[in-house]
Amino acid sequence: MRLELITIGTELLLGHTIDTNGAELGLALAEAGIRVGRRTTVADDGDTIREAVEQALACSGAVLVTGGLGPTADDVTKRVVADLLGLPLEFQPDLWEGLLARFARFGRIPSDRNRSQAEVPRGATVLPNRWGTAPGLWLENQQGLVILLPGVPGEMRRLLEHEVLPRLRQRGAGLVVRSRTLRTTGIPESALAERVGEVEAALAPLSLAYLPGLEGVDLRLTAWELQPEEAATRLEAGVDLLRARAGEFAYGVDQEDLAALILAEARRRGFRLATAESCTGGAVGERITRIAGSSEVYLGGVIAYHNAVKISELGVRPELITAAGAVSEPVALAMVTGVVGCLGADVGVAVTGIAGPGGGTTDKPVGLVYLASTVSGTSRVRRIVLPGDRQEIRARAVQAALFLLHQQLAELPPQHSL
Amino acid sequence: MRLELITIGTELLLGHTIDTNGAELGLALAEAGIRVGRRTTVADDGDTIREAVEQALACSGAVLVTGGLGPTADDVTKRVVADLLGLPLEFQPDLWEGLLARFARFGRIPSDRNRSQAEVPRGATVLPNRWGTAPGLWLENQQGLVILLPGVPGEMRRLLEHEVLPRLRQRGAGLVVRSRTLRTTGIPESALAERVGEVEAALAPLSLAYLPGLEGVDLRLTAWELQPEEAATRLEAGVDLLRARAGEFAYGVDQEDLAALILAEARRRGFRLATAESCTGGAVGERITRIAGSSEVYLGGVIAYHNAVKISELGVRPELITAAGAVSEPVALAMVTGVVGCLGADVGVAVTGIAGPGGGTTDKPVGLVYLASTVSGTSRVRRIVLPGDRQEIRARAVQAALFLLHQQLAELPPQHSL
Repeated sequence: MRLELITIGTELLLGHTIDTNGAELGLALAEAGIRVGRRTTVADDGDTIREAVEQALACSGAVLVTGGLGPTADDVTKRVVADLLGLPLEFQPDLWEGLLARFARFGRIPSDRNRSQAEVPRGATVLPNRWGTAPGLWLENQQGLVILLPGVPGEMRRLLEHEVLPRLRQRGAGLVVRSRTLRTTGIPESALAERVGEVEAALAPLSLAYLPGLEGVDLRLTAWELQPEEAATRLEAGVDLLRARAGEFAYGVDQEDLAALILAEARRRGFRLATAESCTGGAVGERITRIAGSSEVYLGGVIAYHNAVKISELGVRPELITAAGAVSEPVALAMVTGVVGCLGADVGVAVTGIAGPGGGTTDKPVGLVYLASTVSGTSRVRRIVLPGDRQEIRARAVQAALFLLHQQLAELPPQHSL
Repeated sequence: MRLELITIGTELLLGHTIDTNGAELGLALAEAGIRVGRRTTVADDGDTIREAVEQALACSGAVLVTGGLGPTADDVTKRVVADLLGLPLEFQPDLWEGLLARFARFGRIPSDRNRSQAEVPRGATVLPNRWGTAPGLWLENQQGLVILLPGVPGEMRRLLEHEVLPRLRQRGAGLVVRSRTLRTTGIPESALAERVGEVEAALAPLSLAYLPGLEGVDLRLTAWELQPEEAATRLEAGVDLLRARAGEFAYGVDQEDLAALILAEARRRGFRLATAESCTGGAVGERITRIAGSSEVYLGGVIAYHNAVKISELGVRPELITAAGAVSEPVALAMVTGVVGCLGADVGVAVTGIAGPGGGTTDKPVGLVYLASTVSGTSRVRRIVLPGDRQEIRARAVQAALFLLHQQLAELPPQHSL
């Protein structure tokens, strides 16, 4: 099955917002075996939207539109599409009741503008939106299929998953486009490519893509329009081949996250975790606590941005900072042992570095970061110099810190179940 | 002047790559007074590319295409466009010499495939690419204007800046497309729209867009194709009008960030800042330390994820947690006074809440967050219930916490310079 995407928003064309919905839709639709033929972005303008939907319908017979379903005057998608398909808008009292209940839950009163969100083109299927006020709509007649979703990424994503994909999968011919990813970190793309070597022939008909990012380099394998079983078998073998080549730099597959892997391993061993951060300013804690259930393992941490806090809260000796500097091996080690001691944890990780743009010297350039980890009283430390701007250096430092702790945990003797 | 964008790449449609070129082109072209009428993304497929370019030319008479200029088999853009415009490809020896020299500089030898990169449609202007192997091309005849740029972001950006924008500016009549944004938070989109009321007529010819996100609702005003001075004057007046309507919920304009505003105000008053976080797990500290120079104001903080850390590091009394619960008004207040006391700060902010997905009860649902701020010994606390998933609740809680502190700082009597 083939489908066109239309993303609506003047802010997308002006470049004030990057179109992440388009990429997310592409991934999810491919996973369901649906090929996106074209993606068009247009402004919040009735005539332009109408023309784009009309062209897409004529070309593919199916179109998914995101954006322009909100309560304000620039939200015109529903009206325009209803008009194009010749369907009058009808007020649905039960939809309005649902909206009223939602507003009440957050202690708010809906305005008159919100009433328009309870209007539905005649014959359309309402895709209930439990995560926002604008429901999705599924419109189908002799002209083709038009799916309308809100543009707010969180709402779009959930409606897609819960309402749209199940309906689309029913129409597919059983073939799928599937990808699997091997995640690596701590090694640059070109060095990784050297290690992996020429594998295209061995992997065919799978395609391989190198996707470098702030968490490392992901290796993505894609199977194009295969039967699900064949796709799964080939992808599994492909991932195994790549894992063998990438060696110790491979830490996970698909959506696996380094923080989640650390939490799982620590939980298995009954370890409790603490963090001490300088240049990352809380970003390591933020990464860890993104994971639901992290509270079983993660006690908390100290953001020791100022040296006074390193001394008072982490017990770093002032002489150490004077002698070696705040960004140094001994201070990183003192931070990690300090936080583990203060908070009563078993494992810990610490980061101190120079994120820039200021503060660099010839000896200690911007991007220099010391990481330390500790597991049951044994500590290790690593010095790295990271490329990029302030935000990139910080994000890379978080990943490198987690990788250090992950490696140390992975080298522990395996635990035998009792 | 009006122009359409076409970005080429199967990766973009599959969603493996997010189309950042599209946004970057939109920003740069608007700044040069050129309106992007539509953006289309198509796969690396000759027929599809041809159809998209043909449609765009018919519609706007001018199109900028990125991608598909490389040396590999899936790079077909140049051939397709030359064919569409009826221009034969001609090998240019001097372009080839340049390519050979470039390869020599990196110690590499070009392959036969690279020869095609020295072929140019008859009559086209070559836009020299000093940053890669594929030159840009400027093709113009009675059918219209087609600009071809490589898809690699760094090369696209530089060719745009050095070769394309100067040529396009010459055609513009000195008109610009400019936007300004009023940033609001702490008020839902529909309630904000009620407050702002019917302003479209008063703002004309500016257009107004409501842009809701995790940091609040941005109000974007755009001046389309005006003289620069008129655009600036009208936008300034428009922002003033919106600010008056939005009242206390408006905190900044354009790229202004709440954390940066707090840091600037604290710096002005000689205040030092500390944070105490439970459910946000370091995300408030992370937001603050994104700002370069935050170290002048921000001392650090405590991530008190586990109750034991709230007690040991922040001095929250255990009876308080037993009586009121960790997510409560008194605990939020005790956290903020605790961290300010421990770290020796003047101002502070604390967050405790239930980010979910688990942990909610009827009395204390997922999304319930208590925020507390303190300025020079005076504390305030706020209870809110936030919508969304775990990550969204956390991001909204960070913004709400910063907003509470920002408001408290804003209500201080103005400082008189000495």
